[in-house]
Amino acid sequence: MLSKAKAKYIKSLQVKKFRKLHHEFLVEGAKSVVELINSDFEISALYLTQNFQNCYKDFLSQKAVPFELCTEPELEQAGAFASNNAALAVAKIKSNTPLSVHSDEYGLVLDDVKDPGNLGTLIRIADWYGIQKIICSENTAELYNPKVISSSMGSFCRVQLYYTNLEDYFANPTLTVYGALLEGKNVHEVEFSKGGLILLGNESQGINDNLKKFIHKAISIPSYGGAESLNVAVAGAVICDNMRRNVNNL
Amino acid sequence: MLSKAKAKYIKSLQVKKFRKLHHEFLVEGAKSVVELINSDFEISALYLTQNFQNCYKDFLSQKAVPFELCTEPELEQAGAFASNNAALAVAKIKSNTPLSVHSDEYGLVLDDVKDPGNLGTLIRIADWYGIQKIICSENTAELYNPKVISSSMGSFCRVQLYYTNLEDYFANPTLTVYGALLEGKNVHEVEFSKGGLILLGNESQGINDNLKKFIHKAISIPSYGGAESLNVAVAGAVICDNMRRNVNNL
Repeated sequence: MLSKAKAKYIKSLQVKKFRKLHHEFLVEGAKSVVELINSDFEISALYLTQNFQNCYKDFLSQKAVPFELCTEPELEQAGAFASNNAALAVAKIKSNTPLSVHSDEYGLVLDDVKDPGNLGTLIRIADWYGIQKIICSENTAELYNPKVISSSMGSFCRVQLYYTNLEDYFANPTLTVYGALLEGKNVHEVEFSKGGLILLGNESQGINDNLKKFIHKAISIPSYGGAESLNVAVAGAVICDNMRRNVNNL
Repeated sequence: MLSKAKAKYIKSLQVKKFRKLHHEFLVEGAKSVVELINSDFEISALYLTQNFQNCYKDFLSQKAVPFELCTEPELEQAGAFASNNAALAVAKIKSNTPLSVHSDEYGLVLDDVKDPGNLGTLIRIADWYGIQKIICSENTAELYNPKVISSSMGSFCRVQLYYTNLEDYFANPTLTVYGALLEGKNVHEVEFSKGGLILLGNESQGINDNLKKFIHKAISIPSYGGAESLNVAVAGAVICDNMRRNVNNL
């Protein structure tokens, strides 16, 4: 049984203002909650259905995390998911800590990727391709938005994000910056170095003009049909896949 | 000025039942409406804002399509888009006509891709990679869903879809079927033939067991990190990109 006060608090965390105020965010659904429990995020509260508890009995007793039982309708009414027959967690927001991408690894750099679904998908893609660091412009969607968390499919637990001013970030370049532009070199012909940064731009504007000067290698995905562009997450995946043909052992 | 009756009719077309009843669907936003006017879809009604009319004056007079002027709030209230400062069209649904994929081209085959955003993104990806035909299982999301149309970014005008029973479709194989499975051959090492079908499965279940026997070449996207899977549209794009390294001139 979820008390009214708790349900109200959970609901408030769907809104950025309240996430900032309380430094907490929501994680919903079986897969994401299991990944959260396995991660180093600090969990403040955990609400499970009887069904989820039955399915994950051994896992839960092994992890020894305290939880409360509640019903599916309670989870659905409090959370952002239309349907949730499993679990919901409240966890502590991590501080925004600078990330340095080393010379033998790749990082993604996102310039104003605004759509939460795109950011979540990019986190999942980074995780798939073994990229553990994403540098985001200050206007990029917020990591703790429930749609970002949900579309990352648990990968937010393994990939680190750092929000900063990208002009400052690029000011002292140590790594090759690969920028996704429509007029770049065919990505099928690019020789990716051992480490680097892959810069992706905003959904409708692309990479901001003030950042283009920091690009060392402009790259493009060749087009064979009529579409004018690819979705930014899709483009990111195709570039990471091409990078991985050259760089196998990060 | 959009009459109440017209607004009500447009609103009804957000619902599948009414699209089926009237054989009409909605197209919203500047880019999609421009592509629609340029296509062979039959347009029943076209509603434009003054602003859109000013921007596309020459195009509209050249195309000689009749239209009515209305306001942004009218478009937004009648359509499925939260914001639309440009255009909305009502167009005729095309009949579901069998498609044959020739031996020197590629087609996508979608087995129960349920999410409208994923279907729309896959249509855009197919268009980017010069794939003009998509064969869909009967449980795949409906092409004329406003979310499919919108996320295809106009590519629904260039890519043809055919809904059918996939077991029947595969019964007389003439083309190599490449199936995206977790346990397939590394897509970086696959030699794609000149033509073929790329089979993609449902978001959570993958390819149905009853279809696996039709796969000639099981392919996988290599993983380098912790994510368990990629989004189906993202996987489709990566496979198409790899195919295009082998097959350049369809």
